[in-house]
This record gives sequence, C-alpha cells and structure tokens, in this order.
Amino acid sequence: MSRPRRSDQVREALIHAGIEHISTHGYHGTGIKQVLDSVNVPKGSFYNFFGSKEAFVAEVIKTYSDDMHCQLNDFVQGSGKHLSVQKQLVAIHRFSLEKIVQSDYLRSCLIGSLSTEIAAGNSACGEQLTLATQRWLAFLVERITKGQCSGEIRDDLPAEQLANLYWATWQGSLIKLHMYKDSEAALQDIKAMLTLFTVPAIAR
Amino acid sequence: MSRPRRSDQVREALIHAGIEHISTHGYHGTGIKQVLDSVNVPKGSFYNFFGSKEAFVAEVIKTYSDDMHCQLNDFVQGSGKHLSVQKQLVAIHRFSLEKIVQSDYLRSCLIGSLSTEIAAGNSACGEQLTLATQRWLAFLVERITKGQCSGEIRDDLPAEQLANLYWATWQGSLIKLHMYKDSEAALQDIKAMLTLFTVPAIAR
Repeated sequence: MSRPRRSDQVREALIHAGIEHISTHGYHGTGIKQVLDSVNVPKGSFYNFFGSKEAFVAEVIKTYSDDMHCQLNDFVQGSGKHLSVQKQLVAIHRFSLEKIVQSDYLRSCLIGSLSTEIAAGNSACGEQLTLATQRWLAFLVERITKGQCSGEIRDDLPAEQLANLYWATWQGSLIKLHMYKDSEAALQDIKAMLTLFTVPAIAR
Repeated sequence: MSRPRRSDQVREALIHAGIEHISTHGYHGTGIKQVLDSVNVPKGSFYNFFGSKEAFVAEVIKTYSDDMHCQLNDFVQGSGKHLSVQKQLVAIHRFSLEKIVQSDYLRSCLIGSLSTEIAAGNSACGEQLTLATQRWLAFLVERITKGQCSGEIRDDLPAEQLANLYWATWQGSLIKLHMYKDSEAALQDIKAMLTLFTVPAIAR
C-alpha cells in the first residue's frame, strides 16, 4: 500500500480539527483561522483544500457521520453483538454522554447542534446534515426492527416511527444536558424511552 | 388605570421585536441595531433600557415564557377545557407548528434553539432558559398527572419522567422540522409519543 500523500494528511487533519472545533463552538463560533492554527497550517493554503467555509463544514459533517457509523457498526457486530437491542442503545448513549462530560459539557452532537444553527439556510451543509440524520435513523430502524422480531420492543407502531421518536428524544435530551449539565438525567430519558418501547408489565 | 408611560411602551416594543428576531436568527444572528430599527428607536437609547445585549435577551426569554404560559393556561382553562389531555397537547403543538410553517420554517422555539446556542456559556440567559424550561415541564407534569388520574395516560412511569421525555421529543422534532420542513412529520412524532403514553390495546 502506498503512503498517503502529505496533502491528503493535511486535508484529513483539517477536517478532524473542524470536527473538534465545530462540535464545541458551532458554525458561526468557529473561525477558519482557529482550525488552521490548531494543525499549524498557514492561512493562505486553506483554499487549496476547500472551496469555502461551507464546503469545508459539509466535509466535516460527512466525515463525522462516516466515523460515527464505523464505530456504531463495529460495536453492534463486535463487543456489543450479544447484548439485547436495548442494552446496545444504552451503551451507545452512555459512550456519547461520557465524551460530552469529558469536554465539561462544551461539546455537543455535531448533527443536532448544526441542524438548529444552519440547516434551514445552508444548502451544502443542510444536505450533509440530512444524509447524516437518515443514516442514524436507518441504523435505529435496523436495531428496533431486530428488537421487534425478538419481542423485546413493541410492534404496534412501525420501527420507522419509533426510530424517529427515539432520535428526537435523544436530540432533545442533549438540549437539556447543556442546560442542566446532568448526564445521568439524559441517560434516564433514554432508559425511560426504552421502557415505553416495551409492552408494559400489565400486558405481559 | 393610568396610561403606560412612553418609555415602558418602547421597552415592551423592543422586547417583542427581540422575540421575533431571535426566534428567527438566533442570538449571534441578531444585531441590536436590527431590533432598534424595526421599532424606529435610535441606537443611542438602547442602554437607557437594558444594561447589555445579554440582559436584553434574558428579558426577551422571560417575556416569551410569560406570554406562552398565559396562552397555555388560557387554552386549558378556556376553549380546550373539555378536551382530553392528549387532544389538548396535540392542539397546542398544532398551533405552534402553524406559526413555524407561516414563517417558512425560519422561526423556531426560542427556548430550545437558544439553549443549544448559548445556554452553556451565558449565565443571565442560561438562568432564564432554565426557568422557562422548568415552567414548561411543570405545565406538562400537571397535564400528564391529570391524564394518569383519568386513566388516559399510563402510570407505570412517574409524570415527571414522562414530561421530560415529552419535552425532549418535541424539541428534537423541531430540529428535524428545520431540516425536512415537514410539519406533519413533527405532529406524527407527537401523536406517536402519545400512543406510547397510553397502555397498549393488548393490555386493556
């Protein structure tokens, strides 16, 4: 295998620095100069790699989504393979929450926070945000369908509807997380949601 | 009753213009000059009314929350009095969604969007956002408790937990609403959530 070119390495370093900065400071709060400085790249060379800030952030969203889906798939096919669907979902959110707590609640979900900030008025980024959300929802639909087949999750509502609800609840919990800085409360929301996903004890 | 002073009227007009601008453009996207221009107030006089942009936005959040709770209470004690709790909640969200659709999806929930944008780093506004959220949650707890007492809503989870979940789902649905511009999908999320709040047919 040939060694990656220096320019490819710089491009990748800029994108990963972008993920860090934008997850913490948002679109408007992140300056291109900050990103370049953090990887010691001179300002003039930014446009050798990206056509505009918008094009850069669209790449950042795509890479963030790709990385996340590799991690999710590795987990459900690897160390989480023998867990129930509900336990898989709790483990995934516990992992995400730990990363936010480690940042002293400054980091957020890149997809949810950028969607609030820019989705309506920014087409290149809006498109990537929509694709990233569709991938998240497809992952959830797959998990929930599996849970419905095994009887672990109620099937009186379609998996797509439950996945949409679940995604919304997680994103809404993250809003409250930044307000109250209480990761346990966010995990409780997820656990309560999963309780609603099971057939109540009274019906068993 | 004495007539309100001119300065009180100007202050109130600035706050209501602030609600409009910030609901649409966010904290960082709203300039004080825009707000002043929209009510024909000269720039120099802003600081006669508010100590800072932060203090102004804190007042904007408080007024938005006060107005919303007057409307909510008027509805549940007035024209919505004889509806079931679930129908009351659907009517409230249908009304909110209509306002967002009328703005061509540019407006958002002031509380949710500002919480994502500034809650973690802005103490005066953060405090008002927390208070506004607590009032929303208290309203939901009251409604859900009423539904639990009448048997309309499941009571195997505490009303506080269901209210937290419901709030999170609504805020998360608004994120997707700005991405997909589909108010019917957001209303479907709310209706599906309320289906989960009932005891499934199999258990009746």
